Amino acid sequence: MMSKRFVSELVAGDAVDDVFLLAERNVAHKKDGNPFLNVTLADRTGQVKGVVWDQVERILAAAAEGDFVHVRAQVGEYRGNLQLVVKDMAGVPADQVDAADFLAATTRDVTKMMDRLQEMTGRMQDPHLAALFALFWQDADFVSDFMRAPAAKMMHHAYIGGLLEHTLSMAVLAEMVGSHYSGVDRDMLLAGVILHDVGKLRELEYTSRIDYTDQGRLLSHIVIGLAMLDEKLKQVPDFPETKAHLLKHMLVSHHGERAFGSPEPPKTIEAVLLNYIDEIDSRVNSIREFVAKDTSEGNWTSYHRLLERHLYKK
Amino acid sequence: MMSKRFVSELVAGDAVDDVFLLAERNVAHKKDGNPFLNVTLADRTGQVKGVVWDQVERILAAAAEGDFVHVRAQVGEYRGNLQLVVKDMAGVPADQVDAADFLAATTRDVTKMMDRLQEMTGRMQDPHLAALFALFWQDADFVSDFMRAPAAKMMHHAYIGGLLEHTLSMAVLAEMVGSHYSGVDRDMLLAGVILHDVGKLRELEYTSRIDYTDQGRLLSHIVIGLAMLDEKLKQVPDFPETKAHLLKHMLVSHHGERAFGSPEPPKTIEAVLLNYIDEIDSRVNSIREFVAKDTSEGNWTSYHRLLERHLYKK
Amino acid sequence: MMSKRFVSELVAGDAVDDVFLLAERNVAHKKDGNPFLNVTLADRTGQVKGVVWDQVERILAAAAEGDFVHVRAQVGEYRGNLQLVVKDMAGVPADQVDAADFLAATTRDVTKMMDRLQEMTGRMQDPHLAALFALFWQDADFVSDFMRAPAAKMMHHAYIGGLLEHTLSMAVLAEMVGSHYSGVDRDMLLAGVILHDVGKLRELEYTSRIDYTDQGRLLSHIVIGLAMLDEKLKQVPDFPETKAHLLKHMLVSHHGERAFGSPEPPKTIEAVLLNYIDEIDSRVNSIREFVAKDTSEGNWTSYHRLLERHLYKK
Amino acid sequence: MMSKRFVSELVAGDAVDDVFLLAERNVAHKKDGNPFLNVTLADRTGQVKGVVWDQVERILAAAAEGDFVHVRAQVGEYRGNLQLVVKDMAGVPADQVDAADFLAATTRDVTKMMDRLQEMTGRMQDPHLAALFALFWQDADFVSDFMRAPAAKMMHHAYIGGLLEHTLSMAVLAEMVGSHYSGVDRDMLLAGVILHDVGKLRELEYTSRIDYTDQGRLLSHIVIGLAMLDEKLKQVPDFPETKAHLLKHMLVSHHGERAFGSPEPPKTIEAVLLNYIDEIDSRVNSIREFVAKDTSEGNWTSYHRLLERHLYKK
Amino acid sequence: MMSKRFVSELVAGDAVDDVFLLAERNVAHKKDGNPFLNVTLADRTGQVKGVVWDQVERILAAAAEGDFVHVRAQVGEYRGNLQLVVKDMAGVPADQVDAADFLAATTRDVTKMMDRLQEMTGRMQDPHLAALFALFWQDADFVSDFMRAPAAKMMHHAYIGGLLEHTLSMAVLAEMVGSHYSGVDRDMLLAGVILHDVGKLRELEYTSRIDYTDQGRLLSHIVIGLAMLDEKLKQVPDFPETKAHLLKHMLVSHHGERAFGSPEPPKTIEAVLLNYIDEIDSRVNSIREFVAKDTSEGNWTSYHRLLERHLYKK
Amino acid sequence: MMSKRFVSELVAGDAVDDVFLLAERNVAHKKDGNPFLNVTLADRTGQVKGVVWDQVERILAAAAEGDFVHVRAQVGEYRGNLQLVVKDMAGVPADQVDAADFLAATTRDVTKMMDRLQEMTGRMQDPHLAALFALFWQDADFVSDFMRAPAAKMMHHAYIGGLLEHTLSMAVLAEMVGSHYSGVDRDMLLAGVILHDVGKLRELEYTSRIDYTDQGRLLSHIVIGLAMLDEKLKQVPDFPETKAHLLKHMLVSHHGERAFGSPEPPKTIEAVLLNYIDEIDSRVNSIREFVAKDTSEGNWTSYHRLLERHLYKK
Repeated sequence: MMSKRFVSELVAGDAVDDVFLLAERNVAHKKDGNPFLNVTLADRTGQVKGVVWDQVERILAAAAEGDFVHVRAQVGEYRGNLQLVVKDMAGVPADQVDAADFLAATTRDVTKMMDRLQEMTGRMQDPHLAALFALFWQDADFVSDFMRAPAAKMMHHAYIGGLLEHTLSMAVLAEMVGSHYSGVDRDMLLAGVILHDVGKLRELEYTSRIDYTDQGRLLSHIVIGLAMLDEKLKQVPDFPETKAHLLKHMLVSHHGERAFGSPEPPKTIEAVLLNYIDEIDSRVNSIREFVAKDTSEGNWTSYHRLLERHLYKK
Repeated sequence: MMSKRFVSELVAGDAVDDVFLLAERNVAHKKDGNPFLNVTLADRTGQVKGVVWDQVERILAAAAEGDFVHVRAQVGEYRGNLQLVVKDMAGVPADQVDAADFLAATTRDVTKMMDRLQEMTGRMQDPHLAALFALFWQDADFVSDFMRAPAAKMMHHAYIGGLLEHTLSMAVLAEMVGSHYSGVDRDMLLAGVILHDVGKLRELEYTSRIDYTDQGRLLSHIVIGLAMLDEKLKQVPDFPETKAHLLKHMLVSHHGERAFGSPEPPKTIEAVLLNYIDEIDSRVNSIREFVAKDTSEGNWTSYHRLLERHLYKK
Repeated sequence: MMSKRFVSELVAGDAVDDVFLLAERNVAHKKDGNPFLNVTLADRTGQVKGVVWDQVERILAAAAEGDFVHVRAQVGEYRGNLQLVVKDMAGVPADQVDAADFLAATTRDVTKMMDRLQEMTGRMQDPHLAALFALFWQDADFVSDFMRAPAAKMMHHAYIGGLLEHTLSMAVLAEMVGSHYSGVDRDMLLAGVILHDVGKLRELEYTSRIDYTDQGRLLSHIVIGLAMLDEKLKQVPDFPETKAHLLKHMLVSHHGERAFGSPEPPKTIEAVLLNYIDEIDSRVNSIREFVAKDTSEGNWTSYHRLLERHLYKK
Repeated sequence: MMSKRFVSELVAGDAVDDVFLLAERNVAHKKDGNPFLNVTLADRTGQVKGVVWDQVERILAAAAEGDFVHVRAQVGEYRGNLQLVVKDMAGVPADQVDAADFLAATTRDVTKMMDRLQEMTGRMQDPHLAALFALFWQDADFVSDFMRAPAAKMMHHAYIGGLLEHTLSMAVLAEMVGSHYSGVDRDMLLAGVILHDVGKLRELEYTSRIDYTDQGRLLSHIVIGLAMLDEKLKQVPDFPETKAHLLKHMLVSHHGERAFGSPEPPKTIEAVLLNYIDEIDSRVNSIREFVAKDTSEGNWTSYHRLLERHLYKK
Repeated sequence: MMSKRFVSELVAGDAVDDVFLLAERNVAHKKDGNPFLNVTLADRTGQVKGVVWDQVERILAAAAEGDFVHVRAQVGEYRGNLQLVVKDMAGVPADQVDAADFLAATTRDVTKMMDRLQEMTGRMQDPHLAALFALFWQDADFVSDFMRAPAAKMMHHAYIGGLLEHTLSMAVLAEMVGSHYSGVDRDMLLAGVILHDVGKLRELEYTSRIDYTDQGRLLSHIVIGLAMLDEKLKQVPDFPETKAHLLKHMLVSHHGERAFGSPEPPKTIEAVLLNYIDEIDSRVNSIREFVAKDTSEGNWTSYHRLLERHLYKK
Repeated sequence: MMSKRFVSELVAGDAVDDVFLLAERNVAHKKDGNPFLNVTLADRTGQVKGVVWDQVERILAAAAEGDFVHVRAQVGEYRGNLQLVVKDMAGVPADQVDAADFLAATTRDVTKMMDRLQEMTGRMQDPHLAALFALFWQDADFVSDFMRAPAAKMMHHAYIGGLLEHTLSMAVLAEMVGSHYSGVDRDMLLAGVILHDVGKLRELEYTSRIDYTDQGRLLSHIVIGLAMLDEKLKQVPDFPETKAHLLKHMLVSHHGERAFGSPEPPKTIEAVLLNYIDEIDSRVNSIREFVAKDTSEGNWTSYHRLLERHLYKK
């Protein structure tokens, strides 16, 4: 594991000899017709542009976008910004870098969070749903991915472990709200909460950076999650068909409206509650993160483009 | 207190001698130029049309729209519907009828609900908010109206005591959700929950039927509620100005978006939570009532025009 | 197979002794507390209301909504409309009625249409897609359902065989449009066309009437179709993962926008073309049917609520 | 009163010794852990960035955002833009600067405009409205604020005295339009025009720059204006309740639609006219200002983002 | 000119021998296969359904939809509504009926209104616009149509002479508003006002009823009006091209937004004012007519579907 | 015809002596009060800023925005970007430059495309439409413009000859789709396709750059095209009025909805098909061009703002 100097620490004039993520790479051509590379190098603290003038073919072959790269370069300035003039660049296996240098992560203990979630499904009364979750938790790859996946690329819980943090928070809320109203099928609500975003395990990649996968962009996490659920459902003996439809409906409708990507809107009380609980937890987290990062003086954050308002900071 | 025969029980050929609400009244003219009246009579079970051929002036003077009236009539049919041919109609003081015959009411104990709410404000830590609610609860007219008011004309909790039922349910949710997230000002959230709809005490009338008042249609319950709050705020010694603005913001923004009638969207975490808690409780109640009244055979309700979907009944 | 008198032929005073579809059924109560039934009876030509005063329990047990029923009744009038006073009603097995009396059907030869479609997939160059369709066509239940299913409940091609008619018409268009532009993967486009609506085989029921199934309302035909496709994909040896994602994307995106129920919008040229070809064929068919049924004198149809315009009839 | 060199006149290499508005201020940290300041300095002609490397604590204490500051600095360049390296910065009392150096103002005579407005209310026939305005005009603080307030932060009449200019222009239009249609209550219309935006006196601050106040962002000028009106209404003896509701309705509905922040849409002819007169005057002013500032050659302005069009300049 | 008994006066049992407008006509078939007619007969006071059992072919040939017809019939009842059993029906030339029995008309003096308008164009300073209007006023057919045309089928000024009334009212407003703001080209504004809706002369037919023409539905009054204007523009010697474009822009943009049918939004100050003046005058007239026709007791009209509100009646 | 050095080839330090398009020009003032010019110079490969310090008046007089200019200058840098310090600048007649250096053009043979289109109209059965197109093709100016015009400024087919390329592609599609459905008037459809965008010949200018004309912005290509069609229609003897309305309707409605600038939506089957064929061809071309220009590594293009998605590149 190499030591690491961060993008935010670079100063013009420095010599660089360190590992970064090769976030972007474009081939351009010099006047003499020879190729050169424009690259973007990144880590947890930001990104910086660079150029590769020489040995382009060898370096092109050495690493692809999304790879970690060991970079030797000189820090200069171009048109008012820092620019690395890269002398050499070589791929570095992912297991030789500290992922935490490149991806932010939850500050909470993921093992404890996973234990808590499993303890909650362990108390389910419904035998079919209980059996279903037993299967999910026995799937080591699934559990391991679930302990790493972020909940989004940018909007909320956009960090390693974010999906688990978001899911557990929702599960706790679901127990509260579900018990507040009579006639709510609490096992169904809890099952919907835990599974609503499992498609994100494959919609997103989160090895060296958080980004969409091809299947993520082509299919959406709702559709991917439904296929993951279908796979497990087939292994539960005698899972009642109607219950399967109602459970899938939780995933199908959890965005609340067609305009937000749900093929059908919520039509059961459990699906209605799932949608609200998801909205509350996402909104609270996204506001908190926005306020935490805001650096404006005074009582107000800068303008939040998505929410179309300034937020009061107190 | 007179005994009462209900609209739903009328049969062509019957003679009627009973009290109804005069829901609507229009003057029309016969060919000979003389006036006659088209009336709509109502009670808790529905409404029926009627005509008054004779003694129109005397009857016009005897009662206005919204009054209770003692009606003597014959039940006939006109163009395929029941129609009362009214022989006589006289106003009846509201205190001589059993309001429960005309307006549906909550099935829950309003005194207990009010006690519970006051117990919750009694536990507030914030001295100014505590003082504010002490003032509200000392206002006997306010308390008495709050124990009667519906939460809406039609949408949800549209019955006597509905506002209190809705408010208390939200208050319980608020305690849960407010304690789930760190950094929430629970007293502010509770205060916002209790006051968010107080404008409905004057936006609606609910003596003999639930309908909008003139000021309700001209000003909206948000604006009315703010004035009611302002009145009390002035009586609390040294209520901090910023806290007053933040509390008013709870009322101002509780519909969540300008398009739903809020002059500003929620900009504090407490206002964001208030908006969601209000939506959850209204939506759950409105779906429950819709499902309860639905008479379709099978698993689905008839089409819900506002929600634009059929609902699954299980 | 019994002979059949149609709803459109009923006249007040007639005695009825015939088979209808029991389209709707509600239990109500007489003043004496005893139950009676309000029913709606239907066939291809329309529907008529009826009441069952006696032997309610026996008749309730005899047939459910959606069943065919042999009805003995007297035609009367109630509040200006025909009403059957039903004396007896008994279930009739679906195989004893002529479905054509109850459901409109395509006027085209379904076997020929299916042959044509299979001939088109037989010419596919792509070995995996060819193998996939070989599997589909070997599935006798699938083929048989595909030859019966309507394309919609009301909007377009809403008749037995309508889905096949719609699909074949789109396939022919797809060959034209796909060959007009260079670089279009014609096998992928054709595959998308044929599979885009297969979820309707389970989203709708079309034995005795066209209506949504429970899973149809809970999941949508997009989600159901994806699961049907997944099942077959698993049986094709070595179906490339990327190709599977691209094919599923055709189904996922065929409504063109999230607001119309597609979790993702079209992101490949083939998916873009599929969406337009679907829109053209649905729109042309729905306009044609609307114009054909229109009875207004003059050059214009009555107002088309969905399209929000009158149509010129020439 | 100090002399003033403007931001638009600064050149790299200059020494600066002048008064600016401290528009923004953020604390950052050097590598050695010591703090430094990023500041934005502004006047009527624009703004410029700066840094404070030394004596940060003292300078932090000397002035806050929104204060006027006397700045000693050297003009340099950083990443292609001018940057002041600030040596010293000290607060300057607002009464020692010429506000006109910092805020644009109406070119019209505010005293004459106020006289004209008061003369118009002096001719009111309605005794209660006349009494109400007498009270407003006797409130010296109100009058003085009304003579300074802008009508907006950016959209239209965004300069000192802009609200009065806008209000008077609307009042003149109101007299014309109100007399064109029979049955318009001209006093009510005039009253609505004059009071519709009074909430802006507190929604905005306009001492050293135009910006929203905390209560402005939390409550909106509609809600603030209603409270200001309420305060005065209570002092008019026997102001009829219905008239008060109708007058408040003018303020409540003057944005025309809920989506634009009005809790209720206009429901009286006077409220309908107020909304249109407001729109006309705002639109004409905003287009005029946009055209006046536009520097494109040819017949067209640059693209107007809010109106989503280019405007013809003639 | 025959005397007239109105639809509103018909009573079951009457014999009818009078002139009506044949508003709608559909051919249906009896069980024996013979045709019969369903007709709708109308006049200023309403409409009534009828059937023609006999001599269908002769009667079909005698009159078409939109014709005036002399009807001999018996008034009966069918399914709760009045129904004429028509014995004979014969076409009546339009010049033999009093159009006022069939179409409502303005209560104002159309000659005086036209004189006023021509007097206003007579004062134009712009020689080309003055010449253009001279041409329009010399076109007797144009003037005669302009004195009869309604401004709409239903929305506002929907009566004979309504377009002239609307146009004149707007012209007076235009003079006021145009003189209020400096730099407005008043002749251009007046020209736009007078011509903005001239396409309605051909978009609508208003001989026996107000309805859309074929070209009205195919082209819209904006497009028709532009062609009418083009025709006249070609006859004005040396009409400057730019001025022609600016004048046409007034027509093109007068609906204010693309969503309301304007191919381009207003881009000159005159076009902006025209749009507002049109909206004010249409809105005021439509509200007035709605309030005037409203028969509800109390302070509020029934619900106005288009404006989505109740209106206060005072 | 001068040789040409392109903007993309400029390097700081170069001396420039070449022809560019003067894309933009603004007069500013130096501290001494003397004017200087900021200019933007452009060609097919991009644009570069420049300043003119001396002889401003002479140079101002020498050329206007949109002119070609011969520039003598020194390439420098300002705030991180290249900047030309212009020593001299003189207008160059358009016929002395190679337009292809300044405007991209179709890669297809425009003469062959025009021949193909004329061959298609030559096969029309409808004598009036055939006569109409004979007139259009005899109009040498029209044909010559049609062979040069782009289809848009930016969206799709935004290059010389683009309109013809787009129109021909649509015509071929129209023949396919029109023959697929029975009852389509193919001549009418083809006529609509060819004429739908002819207004672009005057809506856009495309001599030295593609931009909107004044009449284009004031009237829209729909309105301009209708006037061009009207002119020709008047010259066809006995062109039936109804057919003229139906043909104009094709132009009027080809954007599909009012919100997209069509005064009326499509109301005939031919107009419906025209709208879809236009959408398909525009969308396919715009996606192709976007993908072709995209330089991102991997399977996806950068974000397409208008389509609001990334596109899959395969």
